[in-house]
Amino acid sequence: MKHLLSTRDLDRDTAIQLLDIAEDMAATQQREVKKLPTLRGKTVVNLFFEDSTRTRISFEAAAKRLSADVINFSAKGSSVSKGESLQDTAQTLEAIGADVIVIRHGSSGAPKVLAESGWIAASVLNAGDGTHEHPTQALLDAFTLRRRIHGDASRGAALDGITVLIVGDILHSRVARSNVWLLSTLGAEVTLVGPPTLIPHGIDGWPVTVAFDLDAAIADTDPDAVMMLRVQTERMHDAYFPSTREYASLWGLTAARFAALPERAVVMHPGPMNRGFEIASVAADSARSTVREQVANGVSTRMAALYLTATGGAA
Amino acid sequence: MKHLLSTRDLDRDTAIQLLDIAEDMAATQQREVKKLPTLRGKTVVNLFFEDSTRTRISFEAAAKRLSADVINFSAKGSSVSKGESLQDTAQTLEAIGADVIVIRHGSSGAPKVLAESGWIAASVLNAGDGTHEHPTQALLDAFTLRRRIHGDASRGAALDGITVLIVGDILHSRVARSNVWLLSTLGAEVTLVGPPTLIPHGIDGWPVTVAFDLDAAIADTDPDAVMMLRVQTERMHDAYFPSTREYASLWGLTAARFAALPERAVVMHPGPMNRGFEIASVAADSARSTVREQVANGVSTRMAALYLTATGGAA
Amino acid sequence: MKHLLSTRDLDRDTAIQLLDIAEDMAATQQREVKKLPTLRGKTVVNLFFEDSTRTRISFEAAAKRLSADVINFSAKGSSVSKGESLQDTAQTLEAIGADVIVIRHGSSGAPKVLAESGWIAASVLNAGDGTHEHPTQALLDAFTLRRRIHGDASRGAALDGITVLIVGDILHSRVARSNVWLLSTLGAEVTLVGPPTLIPHGIDGWPVTVAFDLDAAIADTDPDAVMMLRVQTERMHDAYFPSTREYASLWGLTAARFAALPERAVVMHPGPMNRGFEIASVAADSARSTVREQVANGVSTRMAALYLTATGGAA
Repeated sequence: MKHLLSTRDLDRDTAIQLLDIAEDMAATQQREVKKLPTLRGKTVVNLFFEDSTRTRISFEAAAKRLSADVINFSAKGSSVSKGESLQDTAQTLEAIGADVIVIRHGSSGAPKVLAESGWIAASVLNAGDGTHEHPTQALLDAFTLRRRIHGDASRGAALDGITVLIVGDILHSRVARSNVWLLSTLGAEVTLVGPPTLIPHGIDGWPVTVAFDLDAAIADTDPDAVMMLRVQTERMHDAYFPSTREYASLWGLTAARFAALPERAVVMHPGPMNRGFEIASVAADSARSTVREQVANGVSTRMAALYLTATGGAA
Repeated sequence: MKHLLSTRDLDRDTAIQLLDIAEDMAATQQREVKKLPTLRGKTVVNLFFEDSTRTRISFEAAAKRLSADVINFSAKGSSVSKGESLQDTAQTLEAIGADVIVIRHGSSGAPKVLAESGWIAASVLNAGDGTHEHPTQALLDAFTLRRRIHGDASRGAALDGITVLIVGDILHSRVARSNVWLLSTLGAEVTLVGPPTLIPHGIDGWPVTVAFDLDAAIADTDPDAVMMLRVQTERMHDAYFPSTREYASLWGLTAARFAALPERAVVMHPGPMNRGFEIASVAADSARSTVREQVANGVSTRMAALYLTATGGAA
Repeated sequence: MKHLLSTRDLDRDTAIQLLDIAEDMAATQQREVKKLPTLRGKTVVNLFFEDSTRTRISFEAAAKRLSADVINFSAKGSSVSKGESLQDTAQTLEAIGADVIVIRHGSSGAPKVLAESGWIAASVLNAGDGTHEHPTQALLDAFTLRRRIHGDASRGAALDGITVLIVGDILHSRVARSNVWLLSTLGAEVTLVGPPTLIPHGIDGWPVTVAFDLDAAIADTDPDAVMMLRVQTERMHDAYFPSTREYASLWGLTAARFAALPERAVVMHPGPMNRGFEIASVAADSARSTVREQVANGVSTRMAALYLTATGGAA
């Protein structure tokens, strides 16, 4: 695998291979010395056109654990944040000998443009592009869910027959999109739940069911996992957004709804959470919440993605 | 020692142990290759909610000399600078496997909250919190003073009977607070001197004498060291601040006052200095000034603090 | 060579030595593991008072390939960006044990002040100062041109008898100044071409010819290389700047002018390019354009400069 641009393009075998490598990486993170020599002498550039400290430091930690040299390149506010110069920026990174470019960009498709441009020989990892995809987030979610369900028997396993609700602002969520594709590739059954104005049009080709009533969806699907999306509060005054109170009461994971979930259901959230709004603290902090595992698994999953793209699995 | 949050909590033996380790570290900094393998595979995060390039690069250099991986996380202006998300930030750092978190925060007590929260397994080093403490600054000051007084016989020594004046805006100075506690723990006698409006209330429990007349204090205490605090010029128009001219003439270390000091007295300043205001250049640049030694000793002292907190002294 | 402050001060032997070391460095960059242990344990500080991501990451990659520890210090907007504190900043860097300071500064001469101040023991590399010099840019340009002309026989060669046009806003260009001195030291004949208002006064001592008509200059000099300068578009409304249309038509490398160049002439540009303005895409993307080689050669050239200044050529 040369690039990781989306989960939509990921076939089932490669997806499982990535999760299995992430298991190997997670095992090394339990050691006293966590560093591996795998990417020694390689240069990983974090090219961030949008701020995202959480994602950046997760990739930075992953790359450093693999002994890569890491160069951070925050393009926000700089002259290179203008669209026309993605080519010049890419050629600069190519010229300094970047082996992997981890890119976050406000425009959907920018990582794909970069990967397919011919401007660079480096591998490209999509760290979030517009409202399009955030594939390593979906991989770490799938990794977390697989571990919760299969435990020590995770290696090689998929998610066949698992039922997942993804709840909230699907329209603007690249996390939702990446999860839809990866979860369904791994055999899970996905139901999207949210306000009608926040479910994207043109969803007909997606391998999902759509619902607008969260209580009914919980009752109908008897879910193994409920994934709450972060509400981007800066969007709350947009025309298509319900009132805050309405949103929390109809599509938040309240204490009552958390109590109505099946015993085995896990609660997921990509973080950071708006406690008391899209998720009640009793749900966020329960033993069935995977929020902290998700972040921790992010490093292992990103180590796997860096390894597989930079070496093709050969090193 | 798991954390370094304040000098107030530091007992005399641990304080001397830290200074002695700093001596060992300083010796390694004279070698051709200054790097030690001590923290190889460990991750040190510089979590700075306030700008402080000087302190950040001192910690960064210290951590890199110990072969740690360093991740810089400037939270200023980012979403995580809001108080409510310290928990989320902490859990992110825990999840990426941070071994030490070096935190600077505008709120007094934030490092202690972080250390005692249960959110993290990492060690916490306070790099300055509000007007509370800045313990590594006090340690490097004590290290510098001990060397000036005891020279090659510094190892194991304290500062018993040494007289120190701390002069200036005590009210807002975390450097002053950390020095008060550490110097008195090491046996020094501390006198605070400054405008009445810049001496904090509720100072009764502090192990210090207070004076408002700098000339009289010099005559009365025959000091071994005079520590001038930096005037934060952005505070000069605050109501409790004397006029600029009044301040410089009454509480600045002028050339005349410098001449009136005992021959053996050293002049200290945490930097950066406002030359001609709180300190005259003739004092700042004299052979009795320790300003440059203080900065250099900062790296050795922080190496010692990183080593002792991250390994408990075992590595 | 202790410092690299300007190309004006560089004698011919040292210039050729630097280019030859850059050849050695370029060879190592073709290996599977690109890292050299040359600067292990040394600390390189990138002290940037102006933004320049391209130059910063080129130096950062170069230093990391040599196994140095790199500390980035962006002084823009911070308190240290004020002129009066260059001394304090320098002493801080000295105190943390910096071995090399790579400095970019808005004021011409700041690197020289730093190097000659006595404040520091570190080597100083000028990464661009005001409108004065940008010596590593000129070195990478000369390296690129030498390779195009001499190919595998580059080692030890100079540029005697080579004719170079430098075209555009000479007045504000440190790139132009550094190239004028280095190219002429290496034996090239340099002609400056631009609008009369953008040619500096007091140019009498420079080893160049001046022309105002680009077509005539091409015809007259039969150039081996045409170096187009970047137009800083924020300057376009300055009084001494021609109208945009006039500039592009009279001093841009249009498709017609590109076609009029001799077959052997190479086209150079320090990047990033304003395509369609100072350079047409047909020229920028042609096989005779060295734009991408220039950036790639930047890392090798900076490795050479770091090596020679930090070790004196002994390591």
